[in-house]
Amino acid sequence: MSNIEMIRAAAARLEGHARRTPLLSSPFLDEIAGRRVLVKPECLQHTGSFKYRGGRAAVSALGEATRARGVIAFSSGNHAQGVALAAREFGVPAVIIMPADAPAMKIANTRALGAEVVLYDRAGGESREALGDRITTERGLTLIKPYDEPEVIAGQGTTGLEIAEDANAQGIETADVLVCCGGGGLTSGIAMACEADAPGLRVRPVEPEGFDDVKRSLVSGHIETNNAQSGNLCDAILTPAPGQITFPIMQRLCGPGIVVSEDEAMRAVAHAWSRLKVVAEPGGAVALAAALFHGDEIEGDTVICTISGGNVDADVFAAALGRPQD
Amino acid sequence: MSNIEMIRAAAARLEGHARRTPLLSSPFLDEIAGRRVLVKPECLQHTGSFKYRGGRAAVSALGEATRARGVIAFSSGNHAQGVALAAREFGVPAVIIMPADAPAMKIANTRALGAEVVLYDRAGGESREALGDRITTERGLTLIKPYDEPEVIAGQGTTGLEIAEDANAQGIETADVLVCCGGGGLTSGIAMACEADAPGLRVRPVEPEGFDDVKRSLVSGHIETNNAQSGNLCDAILTPAPGQITFPIMQRLCGPGIVVSEDEAMRAVAHAWSRLKVVAEPGGAVALAAALFHGDEIEGDTVICTISGGNVDADVFAAALGRPQD
Repeated sequence: MSNIEMIRAAAARLEGHARRTPLLSSPFLDEIAGRRVLVKPECLQHTGSFKYRGGRAAVSALGEATRARGVIAFSSGNHAQGVALAAREFGVPAVIIMPADAPAMKIANTRALGAEVVLYDRAGGESREALGDRITTERGLTLIKPYDEPEVIAGQGTTGLEIAEDANAQGIETADVLVCCGGGGLTSGIAMACEADAPGLRVRPVEPEGFDDVKRSLVSGHIETNNAQSGNLCDAILTPAPGQITFPIMQRLCGPGIVVSEDEAMRAVAHAWSRLKVVAEPGGAVALAAALFHGDEIEGDTVICTISGGNVDADVFAAALGRPQD
Repeated sequence: MSNIEMIRAAAARLEGHARRTPLLSSPFLDEIAGRRVLVKPECLQHTGSFKYRGGRAAVSALGEATRARGVIAFSSGNHAQGVALAAREFGVPAVIIMPADAPAMKIANTRALGAEVVLYDRAGGESREALGDRITTERGLTLIKPYDEPEVIAGQGTTGLEIAEDANAQGIETADVLVCCGGGGLTSGIAMACEADAPGLRVRPVEPEGFDDVKRSLVSGHIETNNAQSGNLCDAILTPAPGQITFPIMQRLCGPGIVVSEDEAMRAVAHAWSRLKVVAEPGGAVALAAALFHGDEIEGDTVICTISGGNVDADVFAAALGRPQD
C-alpha cells in the first residue's frame, strides 16, 4: 500500500537530508508557453535528481540489521546514484546493476558515490534479473526497486508536498502539474501529495514518443507496454510499463498523458539552460517541453512542471544548445 | 554612505521579489577542494545574476516622480538586465548603454526585458559617458550606477544577509567567503552583511588574471587600475578599478584577494554544470575556481563561494564543457 501518511513519514525522515527545491520561473518561458510556467528543479536535488528522495526514504525505512547487510538496485543511472548516496550516508554497502549503455556520467558518479557497479548488456538480452537474484541471495542484500516500491513512491511524493505547499502559498487553486514519467513513482507520489494538500492540482504524466506506455495505459485502463527499451536520449524515463503499484494510483488521480518528441525534449534542455540557468537531462526535461510546446493540451493560466534530473553527458548537452530553440 | 541599515531596508523592499537562493554543495566538489564547499548560486536569481537585487533596490528607492521619468544604466550585460527588469516591474522606462561586443545573449535579454538598448564601441574609445550624459539630460532619467552607488551596494548586500543566515543555521563560525569581484558592489555588500550577522566569516574578492585591480588595491592601500578593459571570457567582472565607495569598505573588511586564470574559470563552469547542475558564466565562476583550484590560499574546513551569474553564450559554454576538468 502507498498513501499520504507514508509520504508524510518519508518527509520527516528526509528533513535535513533532501534539499528543499524552489519553484523557478522566467518571463521568457511564460511568453513561449502563453501562460505562467513554474518549474520544480529536482536537478538541484542531491545526486542531480529526485531519485535521492526515494532512495533515502527506502534505505532509511529498513530495519537496522537488514540495512547493515546492504542494498541492491537495478538502474540506468539516477536511481543508482540516489540509492548509492543514501547507502553511503548510512555506511552500508550498495550494489547497482546498470546497463552497459547507460550514460558514462551516471556510471562514473554511481561508482564515485561508493557503490559496486555491475554492468549488463541491455540490448543483448542478458538477464539482469538472474544476475541480480544471484548477488542478492549470496550477500543477503535488500532490493530497492526504482518505482514499484511503496517507500520509494513515498520518498518521491515528498516532491509533491513541496509543490502543494508552494502552490498554496502563491494562491494557485487549480493548475496542471506536468511530471516526467517513467515507471510512475514520481508521478503517483506527487499525485497523492496533491490530492491531500492541493486538490485543485491535476497531475499529468509526460513521456517521450515511442515510450508512451503510461498514456496508453490510462486510456485503455490496463497496463500497456512499450516495444523498445532503449535508443532514445530520454534514457532516464525509458521503462517497459507502468508499475503494479503506481498504475492504480495514476489511474485514480492522473491524466491524460502528454507525449513529446525527442527534439522537443532537447529544445527544453536548451531553454532550461538559457532561461532558468539549470542543467536538465533530456528525460528530465519532457515535462518542460510539454509546458512550452504542447500548450493546446494544457488548461489554465498557470502550469507547474518538474525538471526531474540533470545527469547528462557533455556531448548530448552541447548538442542540445546547438539546436534552434524556437 | 553605505551601511547595514541600508542593506536591511533593501532586503525588506526585495521581499517577495528577489529569489531567496540556497547554498548548494556536492561531495565531488568537496573532494577536489579538500574541504567542504558551499555555493551560493545567484545564477538562479531573476535575470540570471545577483544584479537584479541591486537594480530592484535602487529603482525601488527612488521617489515616485523621479522614477516615473525613467532610469539609465551603463552595463556589459548583467546590471543591464537587473535594471531593465526592475524598471519593467515598476512600469517605467529604462535606457541601457551597452558595449557592442557584450555577449549576444545579454544584449538580447536586455532588449527582451523592455529596455531601450544603445550600443557603443568599447575598443574604439567612443565616449560612453558623453553619450549617456546627453540622453540622461534630454529625458530627465536617473543614472543607476553598476556598483559605486549606495542603494545598489545595499541590494547586493542582501546576498550576504542570506549567506550569514545559512552559515549560522549550519553552525559555521569561521570560513572564507569567496566573491566574484568586478567593481566591488557585491563584495562590499556581502562584507557589511557578514560583519553584522556572521562576523567570523572573512570576505575575499576573486578576480581573473590581468584584471586584479582589487587585489592590488588592497595590497597598496590605494585604488589601482587595470590596463585592459576587455578581451577576457570573464566579461561580467572586467571593471577598470574598485569604486570610490566600495574600496574603503573592502579595505576595512575584505582580503586578501585571489586571482584565477581564464582556464580555471572555464573549468569551474564545467564543474558547476556537472556537479551542481547550474549554469555559471566564466566571470560568475571565478570564486568557485578559487575554491577548487587555489585551496592553498584558503583557510578553514569550509569555504563559501558565490556563483554570481549565469548569462553566457552557448558557444562559450559548450567550449567549457569540452575542456579537461581535473
